[in-house]
Amino acid sequence: MTYQKIAFLADRNDNAQEALKLLEERHPNTPVAEAEVIVALGGDGFMLRTLHRNMNRKIPIYGMNKGTVGFLMNQFRPEDLIQRLERAETTTLHPLRMKALREAGTEQEAIAINEVSLLRQSRQAAKVRIHIDGRVRIDELICDGVMVATAAGSTAYNLSAHGPILPLNAGVLALTPISAFRPRRWRGALLQRAAKVKFEILDYYKRPVSAVADLTEVREVVEVEIEEARDISLRLLFDPEHNLEERILNEQFTP
Amino acid sequence: MTYQKIAFLADRNDNAQEALKLLEERHPNTPVAEAEVIVALGGDGFMLRTLHRNMNRKIPIYGMNKGTVGFLMNQFRPEDLIQRLERAETTTLHPLRMKALREAGTEQEAIAINEVSLLRQSRQAAKVRIHIDGRVRIDELICDGVMVATAAGSTAYNLSAHGPILPLNAGVLALTPISAFRPRRWRGALLQRAAKVKFEILDYYKRPVSAVADLTEVREVVEVEIEEARDISLRLLFDPEHNLEERILNEQFTP
Amino acid sequence: MTYQKIAFLADRNDNAQEALKLLEERHPNTPVAEAEVIVALGGDGFMLRTLHRNMNRKIPIYGMNKGTVGFLMNQFRPEDLIQRLERAETTTLHPLRMKALREAGTEQEAIAINEVSLLRQSRQAAKVRIHIDGRVRIDELICDGVMVATAAGSTAYNLSAHGPILPLNAGVLALTPISAFRPRRWRGALLQRAAKVKFEILDYYKRPVSAVADLTEVREVVEVEIEEARDISLRLLFDPEHNLEERILNEQFTP
Amino acid sequence: MTYQKIAFLADRNDNAQEALKLLEERHPNTPVAEAEVIVALGGDGFMLRTLHRNMNRKIPIYGMNKGTVGFLMNQFRPEDLIQRLERAETTTLHPLRMKALREAGTEQEAIAINEVSLLRQSRQAAKVRIHIDGRVRIDELICDGVMVATAAGSTAYNLSAHGPILPLNAGVLALTPISAFRPRRWRGALLQRAAKVKFEILDYYKRPVSAVADLTEVREVVEVEIEEARDISLRLLFDPEHNLEERILNEQFTP
Repeated sequence: MTYQKIAFLADRNDNAQEALKLLEERHPNTPVAEAEVIVALGGDGFMLRTLHRNMNRKIPIYGMNKGTVGFLMNQFRPEDLIQRLERAETTTLHPLRMKALREAGTEQEAIAINEVSLLRQSRQAAKVRIHIDGRVRIDELICDGVMVATAAGSTAYNLSAHGPILPLNAGVLALTPISAFRPRRWRGALLQRAAKVKFEILDYYKRPVSAVADLTEVREVVEVEIEEARDISLRLLFDPEHNLEERILNEQFTP
Repeated sequence: MTYQKIAFLADRNDNAQEALKLLEERHPNTPVAEAEVIVALGGDGFMLRTLHRNMNRKIPIYGMNKGTVGFLMNQFRPEDLIQRLERAETTTLHPLRMKALREAGTEQEAIAINEVSLLRQSRQAAKVRIHIDGRVRIDELICDGVMVATAAGSTAYNLSAHGPILPLNAGVLALTPISAFRPRRWRGALLQRAAKVKFEILDYYKRPVSAVADLTEVREVVEVEIEEARDISLRLLFDPEHNLEERILNEQFTP
Repeated sequence: MTYQKIAFLADRNDNAQEALKLLEERHPNTPVAEAEVIVALGGDGFMLRTLHRNMNRKIPIYGMNKGTVGFLMNQFRPEDLIQRLERAETTTLHPLRMKALREAGTEQEAIAINEVSLLRQSRQAAKVRIHIDGRVRIDELICDGVMVATAAGSTAYNLSAHGPILPLNAGVLALTPISAFRPRRWRGALLQRAAKVKFEILDYYKRPVSAVADLTEVREVVEVEIEEARDISLRLLFDPEHNLEERILNEQFTP
Repeated sequence: MTYQKIAFLADRNDNAQEALKLLEERHPNTPVAEAEVIVALGGDGFMLRTLHRNMNRKIPIYGMNKGTVGFLMNQFRPEDLIQRLERAETTTLHPLRMKALREAGTEQEAIAINEVSLLRQSRQAAKVRIHIDGRVRIDELICDGVMVATAAGSTAYNLSAHGPILPLNAGVLALTPISAFRPRRWRGALLQRAAKVKFEILDYYKRPVSAVADLTEVREVVEVEIEEARDISLRLLFDPEHNLEERILNEQFTP
């Protein structure tokens, strides 16, 4: 596909700003509101923020990374951008939607591209009841926390918590505990992408728990619902030789 | 669906034979060649053998287990069989097809419902090159062995080797090493069900390796190809309240 | 050994209070300050609190549990107490001493029988430098947290965080991370009991971390030193047929 | 300590033979029978074989490795050998003694510096009863195999089988299963170094199992006893800056 109007967005650090300058010398920088494509310059963290901020625009995002190739990024080169965008392959991601009910009765919604995670806020272990598709699957999980991760996010926090890497097109989500105390050594589960997960925080007054959807933290939650947001489609562009599917697959074979 | 002609097959042990007798008092026992459905009486092992032996018949199989409910079985009750068969839900499984090339140059084909696994035959660690879809993913895996498991088989050998339980409809296979020595602590990978896996045995003269597809063992293999046999459909019947998908999901929440 | 003066301490719940009543009918209840032995009535949690409160008294503690046999407890029976105390075997534990330096510059000391653990307080991952015996072993551990556990505590929080169970007399401590993000999948280490561990919290303003020594929580720590308190000896009494060493060993063989 | 009479032993490959030549130009090569110290030139595998062959001589062994520093080896340098030997620190290892009873009734004894391991020989899973200090700890372990590893060997096969790395002076052995099928997901245990382990092979006619003590394989075993050989002391010499204790400790912090 050919893109004419490109919005360049860069992280604040010198590296990214320098890349921005090099690209602006070659291409006009269109305001995001009028652009057909966003080129994001920075690392995975910046890419994640850019995806979140532009979630409602229907335009694709092409990331470039000056340093090592970021997980969601292409390699930086100032040249040939138009051709690279033309050749690029689109990966469509559906993020997770979290609805978190707080102790105060307020509800907060947030979107997660990587994962929605819970963690205890004090020295008291969290107690969480896990419902899947309306059915209680674990009556009381005693733990530091628990998360639902997407395939795209499976190589991040989920992996640290001993969860499995998920191929992008496998159609599964990972449900992964953090330090499961009871059920003793519970390892988590793979869920179909259509699964609706509800975490019910037990004894939340004595055992406060926070919920995090990527960049959004909600403290003192009492109930957290998570499901794939099929209505939101994030389009990422990748050079064909480094598409995301290949990267995640490759990640599984990295020593 | 209504089945008229039932073939009853039973394992040799007393329990299974007694169940057979109870059912034969109530229903005529049709020869397998003329039957519309097979009712298998025994444990998971007998069910697996029955599935293998009747792979080419296009008829479904309903298992009943006298003891604890087997993984692939329904609970035994002599009554109401016709009604239970009518209400039963069908789960269609595609097994794996293994093509194993032996040192002698002969090729052997076998079908695996659970997994195709490799294991070293002597004290010498196995050295295996892993190709996926024609591409080398691990140049030299030094290990006791390695396997590809289906979702249906993921709760069996694969789980023992620290592999993940796979939901039945997730569309993934598990590639799981046994005692990976190099890459150090490699944990395996999830593959799309369409993946073609080839294990190439390195240094096979000094380091003999055997391959096993469920019940079939091939010794001194030099190359093993594995892919889903989309052309073979195994139909298992389950009482709606205990379908296989639910069981595998449930297995993930078992302490 | 023969004990004459027994102090009975009971948890607040009805079960424990009832047990107390039964024992007080048979034995005089000596004030703790004058007692030769403490008999603690309740569960493991009460035992842990009792051990902490009476750490400076040089007298042994014999726990009795009305429900299931607690890990640190003997089975409850109102009869034969004097004989059981006479026959009991002594297990001597050395707890850990934590010195935690807070952002404000204050230092707090606490004792841990089970473990000293760190956990991030916000959505920001913790960054921790790990020194062992004065030498940096991990320059930057990015994680949810990390802990040092004693053998006695190894079956508790440490086990949930995927740490190993330690035999009581092996002379080792477990250093166990919680969700290690970098080094990727770091599994922790076994340390000699004489090891001096220092956790240095990096970037603590942005990434606040709390430290917990059993029951004592210290928030916003910047440095935490941990070593075995060889000067403190806790003496627990066990019926010979259920001594602690045997229990921990047994725990390793529990499915 | 000062050594006058050095026996140089080298692996067959060119690298090792070249190193031998360089050293023989500088030092007389004493026959092993008359030497005070052995200098072994090669990799870890050669070192292991040299240790086994010279187990009954009471002289220490100093290994040098031309390539990367082997685990049991010092760095190769042709110069300063006498001074390095003088400065070297001695690590004393006690190997394991295996007594394996075969189906035929014969008993075979072998020594293992790293581990004694069992593995199934056919497609039939092994069934093993585990006795520790005369007591049955696992009545029936269904598995691919199981091993007992020393601290020195804990970074080798044991690590591949998901066992823990053991500090050299912790006084523990690792009991580690290979693909434990039942007890489901059993993770193994740490044992005191004085522990006497007996593996009893169940159903050995149908389920043949081989035992390996480092380099010695015994097939069709029916019973295998393992304990530390306190009567054998292997003395390894290490440059103070790279002693074995430090290396094993360091290995635990390697990503």
